[in-house]
Amino acid sequence: MYKNKNCGEPNSSHIGSKITVAGWVNRRRDHGNLIFIDLRDKTGILQVVFNPEVSSKAHDTASNLRSEWVVQITGDIVKRISGAENQSISTGSIELQANEINILNKSETPPFEISDEIDVDDQTRLAYRFIDLRRPKMQKLFALRHKVTKLIWNYLSDKDFTHIETPILLKSTPEGARDYVVPSRIHAGKFYALPQSPQQLKQILMVSGVDRYFQIARCFRDEDLRADRQPEHTQLDLEMSFVHQDDVMFLVEGLYKDITSQILGDKYKQSDTDFIRLSYQDSMDRFGTDKPDLRFGMELITVSEILKNTESNVFNNVLNQGGVIRGIVAPKAGNYDRKKTDELIDLAKSSGASGLVYVALDDNLDSIKNLTDHNYKSPLKKFLSTSIVKELSEKMSAKPGDLILLAADKENKVNTVLSNIRNFLGEKLNLYDEEEIMFAWVYDFPLFEWDEDMKKWEPAHHVFSSPKKEHLGYLESNPGKVHADLFDLVCNGMEMGSGSIRIHDPSIQKKVFNIIGYKEDEINDRFGQLIKSFSYGAPPHGGMGLGLDRFVATLAGEKAIREVIAFPKTQSAQDPLFDSPNKISDDQLEELFISLDLPDEPQV
Amino acid sequence: MYKNKNCGEPNSSHIGSKITVAGWVNRRRDHGNLIFIDLRDKTGILQVVFNPEVSSKAHDTASNLRSEWVVQITGDIVKRISGAENQSISTGSIELQANEINILNKSETPPFEISDEIDVDDQTRLAYRFIDLRRPKMQKLFALRHKVTKLIWNYLSDKDFTHIETPILLKSTPEGARDYVVPSRIHAGKFYALPQSPQQLKQILMVSGVDRYFQIARCFRDEDLRADRQPEHTQLDLEMSFVHQDDVMFLVEGLYKDITSQILGDKYKQSDTDFIRLSYQDSMDRFGTDKPDLRFGMELITVSEILKNTESNVFNNVLNQGGVIRGIVAPKAGNYDRKKTDELIDLAKSSGASGLVYVALDDNLDSIKNLTDHNYKSPLKKFLSTSIVKELSEKMSAKPGDLILLAADKENKVNTVLSNIRNFLGEKLNLYDEEEIMFAWVYDFPLFEWDEDMKKWEPAHHVFSSPKKEHLGYLESNPGKVHADLFDLVCNGMEMGSGSIRIHDPSIQKKVFNIIGYKEDEINDRFGQLIKSFSYGAPPHGGMGLGLDRFVATLAGEKAIREVIAFPKTQSAQDPLFDSPNKISDDQLEELFISLDLPDEPQV
Repeated sequence: MYKNKNCGEPNSSHIGSKITVAGWVNRRRDHGNLIFIDLRDKTGILQVVFNPEVSSKAHDTASNLRSEWVVQITGDIVKRISGAENQSISTGSIELQANEINILNKSETPPFEISDEIDVDDQTRLAYRFIDLRRPKMQKLFALRHKVTKLIWNYLSDKDFTHIETPILLKSTPEGARDYVVPSRIHAGKFYALPQSPQQLKQILMVSGVDRYFQIARCFRDEDLRADRQPEHTQLDLEMSFVHQDDVMFLVEGLYKDITSQILGDKYKQSDTDFIRLSYQDSMDRFGTDKPDLRFGMELITVSEILKNTESNVFNNVLNQGGVIRGIVAPKAGNYDRKKTDELIDLAKSSGASGLVYVALDDNLDSIKNLTDHNYKSPLKKFLSTSIVKELSEKMSAKPGDLILLAADKENKVNTVLSNIRNFLGEKLNLYDEEEIMFAWVYDFPLFEWDEDMKKWEPAHHVFSSPKKEHLGYLESNPGKVHADLFDLVCNGMEMGSGSIRIHDPSIQKKVFNIIGYKEDEINDRFGQLIKSFSYGAPPHGGMGLGLDRFVATLAGEKAIREVIAFPKTQSAQDPLFDSPNKISDDQLEELFISLDLPDEPQV
Repeated sequence: MYKNKNCGEPNSSHIGSKITVAGWVNRRRDHGNLIFIDLRDKTGILQVVFNPEVSSKAHDTASNLRSEWVVQITGDIVKRISGAENQSISTGSIELQANEINILNKSETPPFEISDEIDVDDQTRLAYRFIDLRRPKMQKLFALRHKVTKLIWNYLSDKDFTHIETPILLKSTPEGARDYVVPSRIHAGKFYALPQSPQQLKQILMVSGVDRYFQIARCFRDEDLRADRQPEHTQLDLEMSFVHQDDVMFLVEGLYKDITSQILGDKYKQSDTDFIRLSYQDSMDRFGTDKPDLRFGMELITVSEILKNTESNVFNNVLNQGGVIRGIVAPKAGNYDRKKTDELIDLAKSSGASGLVYVALDDNLDSIKNLTDHNYKSPLKKFLSTSIVKELSEKMSAKPGDLILLAADKENKVNTVLSNIRNFLGEKLNLYDEEEIMFAWVYDFPLFEWDEDMKKWEPAHHVFSSPKKEHLGYLESNPGKVHADLFDLVCNGMEMGSGSIRIHDPSIQKKVFNIIGYKEDEINDRFGQLIKSFSYGAPPHGGMGLGLDRFVATLAGEKAIREVIAFPKTQSAQDPLFDSPNKISDDQLEELFISLDLPDEPQV
C-alpha cells in the first residue's frame, strides 16, 4: 500500500504519530516560508504543511505542486496553531507536517474545479466524468447507492429470497417500449434482445419452484428519451410464490421502511406508521393522479353541481357534454398578481386544458359567511354570484385570502390539469418539507385502458397482471370494468415501483392476450415460453419491479436519476466520455450478416 | 400467504400443531384406504396422508392428484407410525394428516422426473428449464450462488469497497474477443457494444477517486463457443488505488479463503495456510502450465542432459533443433497395458506432440539401483541402456512399478503435452481428493507473447498491465523480456481470475500500444477515454476480474458453469426455452437503419 491512513481519518487523537497518506492536491497555498496543501481522497481533506526547516527537499517538491497532482506524503500529525482550526472538516484540528513527498502522477489543469458548488453543463461533466466523480457530493451519492443495495441484499436474504441472475441476451418480447437488439453472428439474420425487465424470466422462476426471488437487474428500453430517462436503468426485481397482494405490499413496505430509516434516521417520520393506501379510484378522485404527492393536502373537489346553473358557456358546454368541473384551493394565494395567475393558466394549457378559472378571495374578510361582491375577483365574476362563491368556498373549505382554481373539461383532462397545478403549487407555496419522504400504495388499478386512437384495449400496466377474482366475469363482456390485483408504490408524487399478482392460469392469460388483440402466432412468439410453463404446475405468484436509481435519488434528495448513475447517457442516449454509440468496422457488419441502410440526409 | 410453513420445516417438535403448506405433488401412493403424497417445495419434502375417516372430501380430491400439480393443504402434524420413518429427510419422523386440500393448479405430465438422478440431454433440460430447476440439486446450487454473492458483498463492504454499476450499453473496445453490438435507433449507422469486461470503466473509476471498487458484473463475449463457454458470464470485478501487487493478492486471498471456509467448513483444508505462490516461470517449468493443479505432485523434470547421447533420432533431432526432453512419472502405472499407454499417446498427439515415449519400470524390483535389462520396457528400449534408465529414474525419483513418460519437442509443446497428460493421470490414478480445493497464485507473467503467424507482439493477458519497474528498459529493446505485475488466481487446474497492477502513466500506456502495433487513431478510438483520464491525475492502481460462475461451480463440485447459471445458452449460443436468438420485424430493422445481408445458403 502507498498509504497507511486515509486523508479523512486523522484527528487530535493521532497527534504525534507518523503516517503516510496518498491522494490528490485539492489546493496549494504559499504562506511565506510555509507551503500548505489540502490533500484529498474519498474520505476527506487533510491539511499538509511543508516547512523548509523540517525538510527542505519536501518543501522544494511541494513548491511545484499543481491541482489534482497525485502525491504520497509521509509526516507527523501535529496540532494546528491556535486560530487555524477548521471546524467544518473532521481533520480540522490537526495537520500533517510533511517529511517526505513523492509525486505519483501529474495532472493537466482540470476543466472545472473539484467542488460541490460548480456550475458546469452536463455535457462537460460527463465528458470529464473522472473529474466530476471526484466531487465529495458524487462520492457520497455512490456510497449511498452501495449502502442501499447492500441493505436490500441483507433484508431480502433474511426473508428467504434468493438472488438469481437472469440473461441479458434474450429475445424480443416487447412490453410497451422498443427493444434494443443484438445481431447474432452464429445464427444469420437472427437477433437477441436486451430485456426491458426480467418479467417472464422471474415468473418462470416461480414456476421453477424458486419461491422467493430477487435481482438487482439491469433493464433496457429504447425510448425517445424524455427528461431523466436512461437507455438502461436498474430495477429491484422481486417475485414471490403462494402470495396475495397484501403479502407483497407488506414485504416491500417493510423493506422500504427499513432502508429509509437506516439512511435518513430521525428525518424519516413515517417509520412507525403504515404507508397510506389509496385505491386507484380514490387516488384519481382526490388527487387527479395515480402518483399523488401526499406530503400536502390540496385535494381535488368536484363542484359541477354548484356551477351547473350559471350562465357561463365555459361551464355549461362542458357539463352538457358529460364533462365535470373540479377545483383545488391554493391557500393564501388570493393575492396572486396577474403574472402569477397567468403562469398557472399557462401550465393548465400546456397540460391540455382550454383554460383555468380562478376565484381570488380577499384576505381582509373575517369569514366567508360575510362575503360580499367586493371580496372576490375572477375573470368569470359576472357569472359567479356571491352566493355561488360562498357555496363553492364552503364545499372546498376555502378561507379568506385563498385562491380557488377551477377546471372544466372531460374528467381525465381535468384530473391531469389539476394534478399538475397541485404539484406546482405544493412546491411554490412551500406546503411540505422538501426533505420529507412519504410513501403510499395505490392499488386496484384497471387492467385495461381504452386506446381512443387505435380503438382497442391496451394493458394499463402489463399483460401479466391477474384480474380481480370478482371481475373475472367482465373479462369478455366489459374489459373496462376489470380491475386487477395491481398496485404501485408511490413516493412524493413519483412512481417508485409497480407490482401485481400475476396470472398463473394459462387459459386466463390467453383471454387477456385476446382482449388486447394479440394473434395466436404473436402470443406463441412472444410469450410461448411462459404459457408453456404455466401448463406444468405454475403456483400463484406475484411481485414487483422497483426503480433502484429513483429510490436512491429520492433518498439523496436528488431530482435526476443520472446523478446516482456512474456513467449515465445524455438525453440523446450518448456517452460523451466514451463517445458511444460509434461506428463499427465493415468486417464486423459482414460477420453479423447486416448492412447499413442509412437515410440520405445524414442524421446527427 | 397460501401457507404458514414450508414443506421442509415441520419435525417432531411440531406434532399436534395445525399447519397450512403449499407446493408440488412429488409422488402419490395409494395404500388401500389411505392416500399418501410427497409434497415438495424448495425447502424439502413433506409426507401428507389422506384418510377418508379424517376428511372424505380431501381424500376424494387427493385421489385425482397427479405429479407436479400445485396444491394447498391444511392439516395436523402427527407422528409417523413406527417403522414408517424416513431418516434421509428432515421431516422423516412426522407426516401431515390432511383435513383440507385445495388444487391451485394442474400440470401436464412433465417430460422428465424431478429427481437428481435423471439422465436427460441438455437440450431437453433447457427447453423445460422450469421443470429442471425444480430438482433439489438445482435449488441447492442457486442457494449456494446466492450465499457466495452475499459473502462477497459483506466481505468487500467491510474492506471499504464501493459497489458501482457500470454501463452495459457501451462502445466496441475489443479485448481479444468479438464484441456483441447493438444498433442505435437515434444515431443512424452507429452501434453500442456490450462490455467484454468493465476494464476501462473501473480504471476510470480509480482516476475518479473511488479508491476501492467492486461489481458483480455481467460480461459478454461473442466467441465460437468451446465447451463450457457462455455468451454472457458474471465476473467479480474489483479494483483498488494506491496498491502494489501484493496488496491485491492479499485482499483476494482473504476473500476467497473466507468464502470457501464458510461454504465448505472443515472440508476446506487450506484455510490456515497461505496460498502457494509460483512465478509464471516456475509454474511452466514445474507443471508445464500457468494453471497448475496443485492437489498432486507429478512435476515435470528436464532430462535433455541425460538423453543427449543416445542414438535415437527422436531425441537427437529435437535436441539439435533447440528443443528439450522433459518427463513426468506416473506412480504405480508401470503395469499399464497397451490400451492404456495408447490412450496416453493419443492424448499427447491431440495435444500437439508427434509422440510420447514411455519407460515402464518393473514392480518386482526392490530398488532402482539393482535395475537390469529385464526390469523395464519401452518402445525405444534399444536406445535406452540400463545406466540411462537408472540415471533417468534417479533424476525423476521414479520407483519400481512407476511409468516414466517423456516428451521431446520445442519447450512450449513439451509443456502443453505433459501438462495435459499430468492432469489426465492425476484424475485417472486418483492422486487427489476430488472434494479438495487448492488455490494458488501464479505471478510475474510476461507482458507480451510473440505471435508467430502474425509476426508481431500480442498482449499476453491484456494491454493495461504495468511492466515490472525493472523491466521498463526492455520495453523497446526486447519486449519478450518484459514481465509484468500480472497474476492469476488458479484452483485445481483452472484459472479463477486474472489481475494486474495497471499502467497509470499515459506515456507508458502509449508505448505498450505501439509495441502491439496499434495505430494512433485506433488508440484514440478504443482507448481515448482512458488515456485522456490518465492525463488528469491517475493514481497507481490494480485489480482483478474473477469468474463468479466458475467459482460457484468449483465450490459445488460441478464441472460445468452452466449448472450454476439459471438460464444458460447451449453450445450454439441458443436458449431452447425462449428460442432466442430469433427474427425481428422488418419495421424494427428499418428503424435501426440496418438490413439483413444473408448468405445464399441459409445457416442453421
